[in-house]
Parts: sequence; structure tokens; C-alpha cells
Amino acid sequence: MEPYKHTVCYYETDKMGITHHANYVHWMEEARIDFFNKIGWGYEKLEEQGVISPVTAVECKYKTATTFPDEVEVSVKVSEFKGVVLKFSYLMKNADGKTVFEGKSEHCFLNKEGKLVRLNKEFPELFELLTSLAESER
Amino acid sequence: MEPYKHTVCYYETDKMGITHHANYVHWMEEARIDFFNKIGWGYEKLEEQGVISPVTAVECKYKTATTFPDEVEVSVKVSEFKGVVLKFSYLMKNADGKTVFEGKSEHCFLNKEGKLVRLNKEFPELFELLTSLAESER
Amino acid sequence: MEPYKHTVCYYETDKMGITHHANYVHWMEEARIDFFNKIGWGYEKLEEQGVISPVTAVECKYKTATTFPDEVEVSVKVSEFKGVVLKFSYLMKNADGKTVFEGKSEHCFLNKEGKLVRLNKEFPELFELLTSLAESER
Amino acid sequence: MEPYKHTVCYYETDKMGITHHANYVHWMEEARIDFFNKIGWGYEKLEEQGVISPVTAVECKYKTATTFPDEVEVSVKVSEFKGVVLKFSYLMKNADGKTVFEGKSEHCFLNKEGKLVRLNKEFPELFELLTSLAESER
Repeated sequence: MEPYKHTVCYYETDKMGITHHANYVHWMEEARIDFFNKIGWGYEKLEEQGVISPVTAVECKYKTATTFPDEVEVSVKVSEFKGVVLKFSYLMKNADGKTVFEGKSEHCFLNKEGKLVRLNKEFPELFELLTSLAESER
Repeated sequence: MEPYKHTVCYYETDKMGITHHANYVHWMEEARIDFFNKIGWGYEKLEEQGVISPVTAVECKYKTATTFPDEVEVSVKVSEFKGVVLKFSYLMKNADGKTVFEGKSEHCFLNKEGKLVRLNKEFPELFELLTSLAESER
Repeated sequence: MEPYKHTVCYYETDKMGITHHANYVHWMEEARIDFFNKIGWGYEKLEEQGVISPVTAVECKYKTATTFPDEVEVSVKVSEFKGVVLKFSYLMKNADGKTVFEGKSEHCFLNKEGKLVRLNKEFPELFELLTSLAESER
Repeated sequence: MEPYKHTVCYYETDKMGITHHANYVHWMEEARIDFFNKIGWGYEKLEEQGVISPVTAVECKYKTATTFPDEVEVSVKVSEFKGVVLKFSYLMKNADGKTVFEGKSEHCFLNKEGKLVRLNKEFPELFELLTSLAESER
């Protein structure tokens, strides 16, 4: 899968002259949404069917600073999925191919009543797809 | 009415070393919400009754730069209200009393169907209050 | 000039379910930086030469709500330039071609000492270019 | 030490109706800066002396959703400091005393040349203070 690309915005920098660290959490989200689009399960379609997918955990390791107007490549992988908790890993590189960031995120799927959605029952195709993507990463 | 106070956050600065200009729009919102609290009409209560108040226009004039960790005082006034469009004006000063920003915003009130709410019919007390505040500014 | 394209991010929405109004100020900046790139004067190059271009005023008119994951086209034009104050106008449209936003911004150019840079003396080529672009819009 | 208080802003919510997860990283920073103020080492003073303290890692565990206009209490502790890497832990609670978030962050201190600052040599008082705060948490 092609990495997602994000060009650092001026408003994403801070007075240290570099990208403020909170923005990488935004880029993880952008790349994750791009990932869902690429596998044919646009996130907005899930929401239209009454399913939301809140973030339950995030981990960020900042390796090299970036700044405006660097182009950052974000690779996203399903690192684990056994039916309830979906885990992603992220690797971000700058234009020189240098790793700038490594991250992880965890998500669940909730219905409108706030209850956990079991994908294998309600969205078996998505369940199979995420399971196979997770296995291919082992 | 006491001005609203906001201390500039580190993450609100940019690589110029000053507050990024978009954040002042956030502070206008913070001060406006503080204003609604102070007149006894917390914004969340309006929303609980199915009324939202989207922003339809904003104007910003940047007079003096601010930066982390400046304390900014934001004064908010109802500049016009004739029943449909609610207009606010904003004056922001730094700790030296120097004007750093002047702004305006315009708002309407919508119900859940996205239709204009006429406050004089549905919220006559709020209508009277906003009208009298607007008149006192003339 | 091709309009700049921005896809609304999930994190740019608010609890009304629509794009929070402050983000349009970010998109104006993104489109302006894209504009400088397209005319061959990347904003980072100006900064490398010790010139910054702070925003001195912004005006926003919100016409139609947008939300995740709408694609928004942002057209930028130089609306006025007589040597000191640079004025841009912005028109944003959604995928249906409907106007969602109209805006304006004003900028000056400062050197490292915080003094106004007169482009006609220090950057005559950029001066000529911006002047001609402003004139072509009359 | 008194916890830092943050009232969730409207612009910090997203279309799920809750606080967008990236904002907690902002609140960690706000609380950390408040912590430095309270121990008498305002972060801006460090910067004036040519020292910056970039974030090298962040961990976030989201326990309970918050939303506008919840008041969140953020407790910050030095969890580890042996001279180079400064580690903080964060506990956020809502007005009901319920844990909404647990987090960690890691930081180093750099001089203007981007080299690691050894606090025990250059800022012995700050070194002693952080060391004793870390030890008191064991």
C-alpha cells in the first residue's frame, strides 16, 4: 500500500521552529482514514451505518524533527486484530528517507448506544479483511 | 463584565515565534462562551434544547503580536441584535494594556432541522437580554 | 491557476458535526502557501532570506457548512498590492461547485528587525509579479 | 501540588460529539508548563537561557470520553529523572472524580546547537529539584 503523504503546514510549527508534537496524532488519523479508503471501507461509510471507532490509546516516538514545508510519508499497518481491539502501527519518514516518527494506536468499534460492535457478526467482510491484514504483518 | 483571560499556550505559537493568527478565532469562541455563561445562558444549555448557533462571519485585525506565555484579556460585547443575526465585537489586550487584536463575529440560531430560530418567539427571555445588551452598546 | 484542494479532516470537525469555523483560516494559509509555490516564490525561501510575512487582517464569510470528508477547492487571488500591504481574496467551493466560503487576508513583509520590507527595492521581481497579478484582477 | 484545570473548549470537540483525542496531548503540555511554573522554573525562562525541551515520546490511554464544557483536572508527576531524560506521568479526572485519561511523556533538554544539556552541570538547582521530585514518587 502506498504511504500517505502530508506536507507540514506553517500552522503546525511552534516557536521552537519545528512541527509541534501534537500534530503527529493528527497525521496518524489522516493516514488511518486514507488506509480505510484504500481498503474500500471509507470511515464515513462506517459512521453512516451507525458505527464509530474511537481511539482508546496512542503511542508516539519522535525520532527526528520535521518542519514546514517538509513532506512526510506515513506508512500504516494493522498490527493486531482479534475481533474487538484494532491496533495500528505507523512509520513516518521525511524526504531523505529518514525515520521521523514511530507510533501506535488502538481502537474499538461502538454502535450508537455506545456498545462494542463485534465485527465478525455485524460486518463479517470487514472482519475478514482486517484479520487477514493483521496476519500478513506477523 | 469582567474580560475573559487566556494564557497563550506553547502549542499556539508558530515558527515566527508568535501566536499563530488562527488561534485568535479560538479565543473569540472561548470568550463568547464565557459571555453566555456570565449572562446565565450557558451555550451547552441552548444545545440541549436543540438550538445551535453557527458562526456566519468573522473579522480579525491583528494589532500587536502575542506569544507564549502572554496573558491576553478578551472583552466581548453584543454589537448588534435585531432578532435574527447576533453580532459580537472583541477587544483583546496584553498585560501592558496594549491592544493586540480587534474582531467581530456574526451568528444565527438554528434548530435541529437547520431552520432559523426566532428567539423572540422561542426564547423571549434570551431575546430581551441580548436586545438590551446590544442597545446598551450604542 | 489551479485551485488548491483540501480534504476536510476528521479532527477539523466539531460537535455540531461540521467543520469548525477556525479551520478555514488554516486552509486560507495552505492555499496562500500553495499560491506562493506556484508563482515560484516558495514561502520558505522568503523566510530563508530573513523576510517574514505576518497576517495583519482576516475576513471570513461562511456560506455553506462542510464536513469530513468533503473535498474543498480553494481559489486564491491577489486582490490588491501597491507595494506594502498585500491583499488576497479566497473563494472555496465544495465538490458540487457550491460556494462554501469567501474570505480575505492582508499581509505585510517584515525583516528580522521587524521593519517593513519594501519589495520594490529588496525583491523587485516579486514586487513586479505581485503588482501584475493584482492588476490582472481589476 | 494542585492539579491543573482545563475546561474543554467547543473547538476541541469532533463530530463524534466528544473531545478529539489529539487535544489531550495539548492538555499534557499545558499541565507540564503549569508544573514548571509552580516549581519556580517557568518554561519561558529556560528558553531565554537558550535551552529547549522537546518531547521525545508520548503515551495516551483514553479511559472515559469528555466533551464541551467539561472541566478536567490534570495531575502531573515526575516519574523518572536520572539526569538526561525527564519523564512525566499524567492523570486526568472529570468533575465526578472519574479517570478520563492516563498518559506519559518523555523529554530531553537541548541547547541552541541542538546538543544535550546536562542539567547537573549547567542547571544544578533544577537538576536537584527534578531528582528529588522523581525520588519522592517512588
